[in-house]
Amino acid sequence: MTALLPNLMSGQWQFGTGHGTVLRDPVTGEPLVRVDATGLDLAAGFAFARETGGEALRSVTYRARAAMLAAAVKVLQAHRDAYFEIALANSGTVKADSSVDIDGAIFTMGHYAKLGDALGERPFLRDGEAARLAKDPLFQSQHILVPRRGIALLINAFNFPAWGLWEKAAPALLSGVPVILKPATATAWLTQRMVRDVVDAGIFPPGALSVVCGSAQGLMDQLQAFDVVSFTGSAETAALIRSHPAVTQRSVRVNIEADSVNAALLLPDAGKDSAAFDLFTKEVAREMTVKSGQKCTAIRRALVPQVLYADAAAAISARLAKITVGNPRNESVRMGALVSRSQLEAVHEGLAVLRTQTEVLHDGAQHALIDADPLLSCCAGPTLLGTVNAAGSDAADRVHATEVFGPVATLVAYRNLNHALALIERGEGSLVTSVYGSDASALAQVSIALAACNGRVHVVSPEVATMHSGHGNVMPQSLHGGPGRAGGGEELGGIKALNFYHQRSAVQASTAVLQLLESEPAAMAAH
Amino acid sequence: MTALLPNLMSGQWQFGTGHGTVLRDPVTGEPLVRVDATGLDLAAGFAFARETGGEALRSVTYRARAAMLAAAVKVLQAHRDAYFEIALANSGTVKADSSVDIDGAIFTMGHYAKLGDALGERPFLRDGEAARLAKDPLFQSQHILVPRRGIALLINAFNFPAWGLWEKAAPALLSGVPVILKPATATAWLTQRMVRDVVDAGIFPPGALSVVCGSAQGLMDQLQAFDVVSFTGSAETAALIRSHPAVTQRSVRVNIEADSVNAALLLPDAGKDSAAFDLFTKEVAREMTVKSGQKCTAIRRALVPQVLYADAAAAISARLAKITVGNPRNESVRMGALVSRSQLEAVHEGLAVLRTQTEVLHDGAQHALIDADPLLSCCAGPTLLGTVNAAGSDAADRVHATEVFGPVATLVAYRNLNHALALIERGEGSLVTSVYGSDASALAQVSIALAACNGRVHVVSPEVATMHSGHGNVMPQSLHGGPGRAGGGEELGGIKALNFYHQRSAVQASTAVLQLLESEPAAMAAH
Repeated sequence: MTALLPNLMSGQWQFGTGHGTVLRDPVTGEPLVRVDATGLDLAAGFAFARETGGEALRSVTYRARAAMLAAAVKVLQAHRDAYFEIALANSGTVKADSSVDIDGAIFTMGHYAKLGDALGERPFLRDGEAARLAKDPLFQSQHILVPRRGIALLINAFNFPAWGLWEKAAPALLSGVPVILKPATATAWLTQRMVRDVVDAGIFPPGALSVVCGSAQGLMDQLQAFDVVSFTGSAETAALIRSHPAVTQRSVRVNIEADSVNAALLLPDAGKDSAAFDLFTKEVAREMTVKSGQKCTAIRRALVPQVLYADAAAAISARLAKITVGNPRNESVRMGALVSRSQLEAVHEGLAVLRTQTEVLHDGAQHALIDADPLLSCCAGPTLLGTVNAAGSDAADRVHATEVFGPVATLVAYRNLNHALALIERGEGSLVTSVYGSDASALAQVSIALAACNGRVHVVSPEVATMHSGHGNVMPQSLHGGPGRAGGGEELGGIKALNFYHQRSAVQASTAVLQLLESEPAAMAAH
Repeated sequence: MTALLPNLMSGQWQFGTGHGTVLRDPVTGEPLVRVDATGLDLAAGFAFARETGGEALRSVTYRARAAMLAAAVKVLQAHRDAYFEIALANSGTVKADSSVDIDGAIFTMGHYAKLGDALGERPFLRDGEAARLAKDPLFQSQHILVPRRGIALLINAFNFPAWGLWEKAAPALLSGVPVILKPATATAWLTQRMVRDVVDAGIFPPGALSVVCGSAQGLMDQLQAFDVVSFTGSAETAALIRSHPAVTQRSVRVNIEADSVNAALLLPDAGKDSAAFDLFTKEVAREMTVKSGQKCTAIRRALVPQVLYADAAAAISARLAKITVGNPRNESVRMGALVSRSQLEAVHEGLAVLRTQTEVLHDGAQHALIDADPLLSCCAGPTLLGTVNAAGSDAADRVHATEVFGPVATLVAYRNLNHALALIERGEGSLVTSVYGSDASALAQVSIALAACNGRVHVVSPEVATMHSGHGNVMPQSLHGGPGRAGGGEELGGIKALNFYHQRSAVQASTAVLQLLESEPAAMAAH
């Protein structure tokens, strides 16, 4: 029997009382560990986090909490090898893909440690300038941001057990809000291990971090008026969260990052021999294969001018043909496994949906698996679909609504730029669209046009070929989230990420009172 | 038969095909007009607003839209007398109370006209500074805010048919987002008339303004991914809106302003002869009676040190005793009617709930009505309840959760400052708490402590006695909204109000592209 991982609640490591769920190696099928949350006293755990954890975090300044993040970064760096081992075993990812998750997490946390340090020795934030409320300047309004007096329930997806954890937890903890982490069951091991290492190091006060591995049952019921919940995952679960009485009746603040059918757009003036064409085909192939396409930001729709459809199909397919698929322990393998058999099945089902309206330009089934049993492992080769029909009657509508969460994308031919923009908008809101071209003015114009339906617009021109951060890489400096189908949420974006974990309040007072808020923030908040 | 008011949909004034609902004079019971929305083609109306209205609004700059607001202000000013007549007849309010609604609306609109003009000739907003994404400064991230490509469904409460309409519509229209207005049925007349005057003046492009009077049925079903809905009203209706598939499944953005049990706090060191004590009792009495206490920001809980309980009860009661109640057409009347018999009943029911745990310090039933029939009119005298029990076992808990939407407040005695803060927090999130004292340091400390559970903290000290803007007056410079029970929303707050109607997007690009966004915004967005 595999080891059962304990949960951290009420500052105590606690085992669930049930049999638990087995986590497996997606390449070999081997059982690794078990997780279980049966029988936990959630009410006590949430209260401990809210009261003991919250009070301790709020009693210190942003700079002090930033120092905790910086210390946690060091702990994570010290255990980095162990995390890569867990990712290899439990996520079936090659080293470069594990790095996106693990090193991405550490980088993001370090970023917030720096931002937090710059906020200084103060216990609340000023928000904008004071505004007069009367002709006499003696009475004014000053907005401030104070830490929410609740907990942050952070529910994550299976694809980023490390980054998904810390990109949410770092801004929350920096804000002074304790976190209760609920990793996706399939890959909960890495999250649990990272939390264990950080907690063992005694960096954060008791109650600042809690982790529940296993079922999410009952977690939402615990939420109270000043709590927040941030969720990454399926649109179905997102709808359940939004419909819960905690949200509909108690106004618990919600952030959702759900499905997104992201696009990449090669501008009309790019020829097949242009640098932009090369950058486009390279990025599409890369996005399809990094983490086996299991990224919410991955390119799902690749738009090209009609005349370049065949050339783009050939160029992307040629790149995909070189991708070796199989057991990531074999050094010749470039792309590892999907996370589970059920995800593999979901990808096959999604492919079937799209194939009714598209042609297969590169068939992933042709990739022989290296050191992996097709009947047992969760490996799948990359598949490029294509349609020129979206350029005619727009009949191929499924491509705009179907997110196949694996190494799958669809090449879409467009008639002209307006048609391309309209096709992208049919995604009904995305996390990111990338644009490829060489004319700065055209790129700027398209960026503004795309901003309304994208949380991020990533612009690739030849002069940034070697330094752009990648279509699918989420940088802590930029907003992560998108309208509509993408869930309507906002994460990261540098210091903006802290807003979600703060209460904004307008203090209307005499200038004497407002000046004290500014000149002696620590003394004024010490009450 | 009274006149039926038409709705504005698809740029056309359209009558409902049903019999309609009669709006009445709450003092005399006289029927005034009818409203009805039966049979409207909502799908066509929403599409017209979204496409025709949205495109026209977005095709011009903030300064151009600000000029439209300024022109609308002039139209409203020109028809001001008519609005006071409608308010007198339909809301039963004295002139000063009608002014809070009507002049408050015009002032707020003028404020956004000014703010918008300062944004200048640009079609989108820059949001913060650019941030480097690589060591090389050539690739950076710049957040921008672009108008949402949807409509704003604005659902208002009966108590502010003028201000409630324009405080939401002004930021939306300035942002380039068309509005579909749904006033509360009981007082829809004033909203409809103001919209009619502004539309007749031809200021806004067709589709920018729509108004549906009568049932809200089917409106939420029309909402799509890029639309937003902003609601002011009961927590029950708020929960229905939040549970609607438009929100849970299509990520329609929601702003809610619901119940709020606002507090006023006299600090411990204020003696009974202090200026702060006077300012406190004056403001409590004023807030109880302005608009017959039908303000979501009105003081419901007035907290005083135990030793001042009897003095405060006497001082507030003495002020209330002078309030003359009845027909606002009689010039000796200071306080008019509640809006309807059902509201009058709701107030009586709420009073019954609170009276099980409180004593009556001033009984509104003692006020003889002037020129109003108690059996027919919706008039009610102001009632001050009180409890010293909240200072002991805290048994009087209903006062923290019961919003009686009328001229009713409860005096609550507290033991010490920490106890007072804990009692206020038991409101589980409020729109506003006001604080009265003379020590700047104490006032600043309490403000920060209260900020976590209040959208606004209003600080009254003797030096601002004659110029402070009032506990319950919502100034456009300050945030209006609050966490938890108050709905978790954010309105107004100066330029911050525009965020709700914009999509934030991070443009990651070469500095050449980002510089064009900054130097030639109009040209770049003209695409």
